[in-house]
Amino acid sequence: MQILLTIAYDGTHYCGWQRQENGLAVQQVLEEAIAVILERDVRTTASSRTDAGVHALGQRATFDGAGLKIPVEKLPQVLNGLLPGDVSVVAAQAVADDFNPRFHARRKTYMYRFHQAAAANPLLNRYSLHVAQQLNMNAMQKAAQHFVGRLDFASFCATGGSAKTTVRDIFACEVTHIPNSTGQEITFTVTGGGFLYNMVRIMAGTVLYAGLGKTAPDDIPHIIAARDRTQAGKTLPPQGLTLVAVEF
Amino acid sequence: MQILLTIAYDGTHYCGWQRQENGLAVQQVLEEAIAVILERDVRTTASSRTDAGVHALGQRATFDGAGLKIPVEKLPQVLNGLLPGDVSVVAAQAVADDFNPRFHARRKTYMYRFHQAAAANPLLNRYSLHVAQQLNMNAMQKAAQHFVGRLDFASFCATGGSAKTTVRDIFACEVTHIPNSTGQEITFTVTGGGFLYNMVRIMAGTVLYAGLGKTAPDDIPHIIAARDRTQAGKTLPPQGLTLVAVEF
Repeated sequence: MQILLTIAYDGTHYCGWQRQENGLAVQQVLEEAIAVILERDVRTTASSRTDAGVHALGQRATFDGAGLKIPVEKLPQVLNGLLPGDVSVVAAQAVADDFNPRFHARRKTYMYRFHQAAAANPLLNRYSLHVAQQLNMNAMQKAAQHFVGRLDFASFCATGGSAKTTVRDIFACEVTHIPNSTGQEITFTVTGGGFLYNMVRIMAGTVLYAGLGKTAPDDIPHIIAARDRTQAGKTLPPQGLTLVAVEF
Repeated sequence: MQILLTIAYDGTHYCGWQRQENGLAVQQVLEEAIAVILERDVRTTASSRTDAGVHALGQRATFDGAGLKIPVEKLPQVLNGLLPGDVSVVAAQAVADDFNPRFHARRKTYMYRFHQAAAANPLLNRYSLHVAQQLNMNAMQKAAQHFVGRLDFASFCATGGSAKTTVRDIFACEVTHIPNSTGQEITFTVTGGGFLYNMVRIMAGTVLYAGLGKTAPDDIPHIIAARDRTQAGKTLPPQGLTLVAVEF
């Protein structure tokens, strides 16, 4: 019996999702908690290999649940009793043995958060990029709309990526004002079939440039057409990024 | 020349506002940053001595700015360059030498944050109390209304408080739904002339009991009249509490 988990985490103190020799990964923390319950080693497969410092509300990961002695619906509560406070299992369900959370992912949604103020807000800082300059929301919204479609995102891909093609489907892309309990935020949210390495952080950086007036929103189609990384905005830091949801 | 600062902080890693021998206080971190600029030791006086783990968006503190060589309006930017990311100076202004941010505070606003979900949300956890059970918003809102007025809050005061009187003025008290970027929150917000030791955390605990159905909203007047700490709800943990604003 294969089990699919939905996982939320604060990525601040982790070297990313994937196990590494030189740091603690979310995957390792989760696998060690599952191993306590199964009383054996276990390996998980995730939908996304989030980078160091990136957060998640809806990461998905599977593991072989053979020998599980508790009902699947009790797994979140039992695992959360074993996990640290910055990793939480939100849901668990049984899935077919041939289900693969990476290859069967049809849509992924990421969010990049900004907060604009003269001084950084320490209650938002950890999850949201502070921008001291004024931002033009309208320009950011217009810029985001240009990313929707089946497009070649070579300009929005970090060098060293191993993808066979740089064409990706973007289903939705928007910039929204969110009145949080501790201050206003501007969020860049993008839903796509898949993303190239650092693609969301480069898209967010380009949208930020539009908000700062460094890039005109209508230049985005030219930046895309150029297929040249140097034409797009900079890669924004990981702490502003959250993997919101994966759909199959 | 006396200077008044507005300060925001993530209280997670601090032993509270006030300097202590056995831990790092926000006051110490701030005073050390100011001392770098003034090139001498300095002492600050704050509006509120927030407890260990409590956060702030609008703490206020004064210090003697004699010898300051930069314009007051540049202070936030310069101080923020010296301060860690979890403490931020939001504003600075010159005030009269006889101004005292503690005794001249006329209104203080605190917020206690909750998030309700089966599993805790790691992106809210740090600033917001996780509640697994369903909450009755209507009951919480009704309960909060009973706190408004000039009332004796002896039932809402931790033992060991040194206040001469337990009567306090509460100007506003409400419970609101807030749609944050990473999940729904319920906030308990209270504005008063001053608060007894742990008073907001006990009020929030009592409002939580109303939300859980453990206390009827209309029992609040009786709990207040009892002048008995054991009648009120429990003292909620500090991480959910934020000092939002101080008005003079």
